[in-house]
Amino acid sequence: MKDLEDIPGLMDEMGRRARAAAADLAFAPPEAKRTALHGAADALEAQRTEILTANGHDMAHGEGKGLSPAMLDRLMLDDARLDAIANGLRAVADQADPVGQVIAEWEVPSGLRIRRVRTPLGVVGVVFESRPNVTADAGALCLKAGNSVILRGGSESFHSARAIHACLIAGLQTAGLPEDAIQIVPTRDRAAVTEMLRMRGYLDVIVPRGGKGLVGLVEAEARVPVFAHLEGICHVYVDAGADAAKARAVVLNAKTRRTGICGAAECLLLHRAIAGELGARIIADLVAAGVEVRAGEGLQHLPGVRPAALEDFGREFLDSIIAVAVVEDVDGAIAHIRRHGSGHTEAIVTEEAAAAERFFTRIDSAILMHNASTQFADGGEFGMGAEIGIATGKIHARGPVGAEQLTSFKYLVTGNGTTRP
Amino acid sequence: MKDLEDIPGLMDEMGRRARAAAADLAFAPPEAKRTALHGAADALEAQRTEILTANGHDMAHGEGKGLSPAMLDRLMLDDARLDAIANGLRAVADQADPVGQVIAEWEVPSGLRIRRVRTPLGVVGVVFESRPNVTADAGALCLKAGNSVILRGGSESFHSARAIHACLIAGLQTAGLPEDAIQIVPTRDRAAVTEMLRMRGYLDVIVPRGGKGLVGLVEAEARVPVFAHLEGICHVYVDAGADAAKARAVVLNAKTRRTGICGAAECLLLHRAIAGELGARIIADLVAAGVEVRAGEGLQHLPGVRPAALEDFGREFLDSIIAVAVVEDVDGAIAHIRRHGSGHTEAIVTEEAAAAERFFTRIDSAILMHNASTQFADGGEFGMGAEIGIATGKIHARGPVGAEQLTSFKYLVTGNGTTRP
Repeated sequence: MKDLEDIPGLMDEMGRRARAAAADLAFAPPEAKRTALHGAADALEAQRTEILTANGHDMAHGEGKGLSPAMLDRLMLDDARLDAIANGLRAVADQADPVGQVIAEWEVPSGLRIRRVRTPLGVVGVVFESRPNVTADAGALCLKAGNSVILRGGSESFHSARAIHACLIAGLQTAGLPEDAIQIVPTRDRAAVTEMLRMRGYLDVIVPRGGKGLVGLVEAEARVPVFAHLEGICHVYVDAGADAAKARAVVLNAKTRRTGICGAAECLLLHRAIAGELGARIIADLVAAGVEVRAGEGLQHLPGVRPAALEDFGREFLDSIIAVAVVEDVDGAIAHIRRHGSGHTEAIVTEEAAAAERFFTRIDSAILMHNASTQFADGGEFGMGAEIGIATGKIHARGPVGAEQLTSFKYLVTGNGTTRP
Repeated sequence: MKDLEDIPGLMDEMGRRARAAAADLAFAPPEAKRTALHGAADALEAQRTEILTANGHDMAHGEGKGLSPAMLDRLMLDDARLDAIANGLRAVADQADPVGQVIAEWEVPSGLRIRRVRTPLGVVGVVFESRPNVTADAGALCLKAGNSVILRGGSESFHSARAIHACLIAGLQTAGLPEDAIQIVPTRDRAAVTEMLRMRGYLDVIVPRGGKGLVGLVEAEARVPVFAHLEGICHVYVDAGADAAKARAVVLNAKTRRTGICGAAECLLLHRAIAGELGARIIADLVAAGVEVRAGEGLQHLPGVRPAALEDFGREFLDSIIAVAVVEDVDGAIAHIRRHGSGHTEAIVTEEAAAAERFFTRIDSAILMHNASTQFADGGEFGMGAEIGIATGKIHARGPVGAEQLTSFKYLVTGNGTTRP
């Protein structure tokens, strides 16, 4: 029985178990991992009632704490979302197993044959906040990549995450894989996070998944490599060469489809030449959809609009609010995004290939979209089955992090008694 | 004129310049980078005398400080080594430019076309010790990958590194690229290293290249992501199924070709079945070559051998010394390496495919060799032209780090007014 008061002791034990499980997982047959994930999806459907009940507890707790509607939307589970989680598990299950894949193979003049082969990373730590589906996505992707994982969910999603975790354990049992492959920290005590950030001997990488406060804490304090997941301050730029129908559809979708996800647009940039007509129509669309439009100079006369403050640019609202500014041209948009963006996802709407190419080349965000909604910034939509998060850093992982980016590699070199001159 | 007393101010200025240069380099034409590197190679040959004179100063200083022969060997330059450095520059120059390469391309059911494209990392910091050629290799690889770099060489190689750096600058000038693309810290003050480790706003990654002390300091203190370059405690395991001639050749080469490089073998493991005959012959070869053989139990009666201490296993001698132990079989070798290795390079000598496969699968080192010398653990030998070091960590870079591993990537997504349901 674990002592939930002794956090260092608890985390040390979890670390040792994770390391031992990782050694087994590194050679686990692909079929066993597949079976475990299908088993978890089956368990998720069988335990639907228990999970929704647990989520009801978390929702009530969140409402009591006064979480914003967008935050509550992140936390909420229903049948459709449970179906999506189960489908995500199955999609990951049926992907090609990344471990052992030959990434590259070549011969060198000395006669050596060199193969670069995918290997697991080892042990992954995931620290997340309100979204309970992270439990399933992160657990599944780490397992698929042959890693063990220690999950630490936020207090908001405590019960939901544990209920989903129980399904993952059921899957591991079905497949005969070690239960320690997917552990969840069994306490809301924040000291557990502090411990995780120092577990150099046990954790190979730590993935923070949450708001600015959490990610900032992790990046500042971690003694373990971090896959940075900063804010999603996503921009949509409507160029002079935009098709009006596409622009209206993309902007409305980018802002309103779901406002609480990191791929939601937070800022609309309008080329001066189209700001007055197409721009005004897009803003009217947003206002009609109930979005609070905070507009910069030249747009503040439009109906339903309120003036933007300086700090509304570069801000992640995660709510039904958008900042709008007029820029001179594509270079003005690029400059604005370089200054205010978070390196997550930006979109350009234009029919002019040169403008799109310039936007693609000159902006260094993880994802750049041309004539498509920023809401597609998602591992599932990218064909990865699920994602452990969207990385905004540039080391190792970037953009949606699927199983493949949770691997490392090694070189296998074959000679014939070959010596170096 | 820089104030060499104000280290924080100096490093801040270098950081700002590096960041500005990186913005230009990200779109530098491949041809300009190629021209710069050929120009640097030409300059290196033209300034041969100046470089060897500078190296003479460093060697005299090193001898005065009592550096070991292996350390002095790392520091020493001669015509042949300068030729190798120039050839390395030309090899990197003529490689395919990694920036903009499409790594993967696919379509998803929503109709989006997704491309994963290589981008520069940004600004790289390289902290190294005695090997002056790191200046050229690191500068060239960072430039090729579109990164700017801040180099900080050790006090041992201070003059040699500056002389080589001058050639890189000449190359940048020839090509019209910003000189700030490749900067070298102009002081021996160790406070500069401490500053670099904290330059989060300027450095995207830091690469320590040196001994255990330096790497340990960097890993403990860095607030910037680190490509870990730990020790090279390389093992050669001679299996029962080894071909005798190959085993003798590989072991002798792995230990004696150059003892001061991280790919030099530090430990020989002998399968019990061949320890008495083939093992004894290999040890006689080593003794005859002047190697100090520190042997474990069962081998200490052999001529010229001295008994190994426990701490001789898992030790990076970087000298003409080798530890030798008898193991039961390939699993014994795997267990020994898991316990004592540093995750760098290990070799197995055997004609039995199953033993080699087991060694390849069960050991998680950056490089595994079959019937080949560990001295091949080198970016040049791997066909990368040069290397910035051998990474023993598993995040982002692993094994020899060439230009490709100094890049990141981004996703370019093309739709047609595509919105997410």
